[in-house]
Amino acid sequence: MKPLLAITMGDINGIGPEILVKALAHGEVWSQCQPLVVGSLAHFQALAADAPGCPPPVRVGEPEESAGVADAVPVLDTGIPVPPRRPGELDGEAGRCAIEWVRTGVTLAMEQRVDGLVTCPLNKVGIHQAGYAYQGHTDFIAELTGSRDYRMCLFAGSMRVVHISSHCSLRDALDLVTEDRIADSVRIAGRALSGLGLARRHVAVAGLNPHAGEEGAFGQEELERIAPAVAQCLEEGLECSGPHPPDTVFRRMWKGEFDAVVAMYHDQGHIPMKLIAMDEGVNVTLGIPIVRTSVDHGTAYDIAGTGQARETSLCAAIELAAQFCQGGWTPKTMLRPAVPRGAES
Amino acid sequence: MKPLLAITMGDINGIGPEILVKALAHGEVWSQCQPLVVGSLAHFQALAADAPGCPPPVRVGEPEESAGVADAVPVLDTGIPVPPRRPGELDGEAGRCAIEWVRTGVTLAMEQRVDGLVTCPLNKVGIHQAGYAYQGHTDFIAELTGSRDYRMCLFAGSMRVVHISSHCSLRDALDLVTEDRIADSVRIAGRALSGLGLARRHVAVAGLNPHAGEEGAFGQEELERIAPAVAQCLEEGLECSGPHPPDTVFRRMWKGEFDAVVAMYHDQGHIPMKLIAMDEGVNVTLGIPIVRTSVDHGTAYDIAGTGQARETSLCAAIELAAQFCQGGWTPKTMLRPAVPRGAES
Repeated sequence: MKPLLAITMGDINGIGPEILVKALAHGEVWSQCQPLVVGSLAHFQALAADAPGCPPPVRVGEPEESAGVADAVPVLDTGIPVPPRRPGELDGEAGRCAIEWVRTGVTLAMEQRVDGLVTCPLNKVGIHQAGYAYQGHTDFIAELTGSRDYRMCLFAGSMRVVHISSHCSLRDALDLVTEDRIADSVRIAGRALSGLGLARRHVAVAGLNPHAGEEGAFGQEELERIAPAVAQCLEEGLECSGPHPPDTVFRRMWKGEFDAVVAMYHDQGHIPMKLIAMDEGVNVTLGIPIVRTSVDHGTAYDIAGTGQARETSLCAAIELAAQFCQGGWTPKTMLRPAVPRGAES
Repeated sequence: MKPLLAITMGDINGIGPEILVKALAHGEVWSQCQPLVVGSLAHFQALAADAPGCPPPVRVGEPEESAGVADAVPVLDTGIPVPPRRPGELDGEAGRCAIEWVRTGVTLAMEQRVDGLVTCPLNKVGIHQAGYAYQGHTDFIAELTGSRDYRMCLFAGSMRVVHISSHCSLRDALDLVTEDRIADSVRIAGRALSGLGLARRHVAVAGLNPHAGEEGAFGQEELERIAPAVAQCLEEGLECSGPHPPDTVFRRMWKGEFDAVVAMYHDQGHIPMKLIAMDEGVNVTLGIPIVRTSVDHGTAYDIAGTGQARETSLCAAIELAAQFCQGGWTPKTMLRPAVPRGAES
């Protein structure tokens, strides 16, 4: 059976709703999953009418109804008041809708009523205007799922990066280069490769300093923190190696030598991934008990409403979420203790 | 007239001599410059005999004789005792030769008897074994030329990166993110683009932190140091901008938006450059009074003697040095005060 994926609409004034109707015009998306849009029925209807190939929406009251919907896009409209769509304009009420739709999607995943969650972009300033204190999707989802040791990751085809830290200054990131965080990241990466059903799961760990420190000449972190973390993971039977020189490890993954790289800070992983896979990158949150992927871009207010936005990253996010579910990762297997399906209401 | 370029042979046990005879088999190299090899005549002779298309060597006593040499490679053999070639083996005497050939090349450039210097790789451990305390080419050349404010740079086609710091730990690199170093790097980059004869010389300055600090949310360096340095350079009439988000600025240069990027630390520039231009990267030392380019790889002892080494980076280094000379950069224009040619002996 195809996985049922909740896809949140994102900020209605951003490009989210536009790329959503474009993505749902692709037959491949429908062959990979059963989509369930969480968002505004009215806005979806208006945009779908102008998107060649996108089926019309149909309102569903429960996610379980999605499978019975034929030649239409099931939309779960939670009834939250939705403002008019004004592309490119910041609106706290649009921010409130965007984040509440995410709350619905997470709840459905935690209740095992959907198999995974894919999110369209929301605007951080918009959600702040609506009174929410979150930095974005990731910390909100982590809170909702009670996750502490989660990781923001960037996947693009066979390139996969798990960052040991994310949105903080580079100076603060240096203090987060700890043996525990590195080892946990290797474990998380290994589990993700397993969740994708891959036979080979080689996790390469990047160094922090130029040339991976060159035996301590350019910094001690490789000797004191990274190498011990790799040794610990090898002892646990994980397939991993490192620390590798940062300026070639991503190329080596690109050429097929590694299946994932653990990056020591945000830009170490973001610079190579955005360079090679600008349009096909997918954000993945690992270390949470549900499958969650996201586009790798923001609301792009500057082009919202112009029809220029491309749906490639969203299509890739949907495909990756479906792969995780088919590789064996669903809330049913990830949530511990397992709750029998149907027991939640 | 074609520029006269001194090309040092590098560590004879590394891949330097092999890529040198391969490079000199290319007609394009000869159309761009008049090469003058500085190194061992005997080793060159042995290798050239096996390199299809490489002209035989001929010994010259003075660089000025090079132009009169026909269908042969002029080799300036300084007479330093050269050990037998043992590919892949570390040898302090080979290290001594490598670095002394560089000394000769730099002296010739400073005396304006050659127009530029291109270096093949030497081995740092080898030169240490021979009793030299340098980290490599760059600090040695800086010392010989009396340069204090030099920069290690990486060029590949229309991608050019000037690093504000190089071989030090990332933690130490953070302390080198100063307004002065950034502004000097922009000036150095601007002069280099001018030296290449380019009409457009847009220097983009990368941020240090994720998203270029996001208005101070992820670090203060953008607001306190980078933006003021850019403002200063704009005031001086330089074509520059920034700080730009680090994870897209290199892609934007790749796509033609910028002509150079000032990078805040070694790997910020090295990761994208090695990813895209692994074989065609050229190391350039800027901020010194001579033209000096180098291959962007080491001695590669693991493949030395096997014939696998590729000459692409050396060909690119020769081409770039020639471009600088033809764009107007020669020791004659760079050395201040200008010394009339011929006055030095």
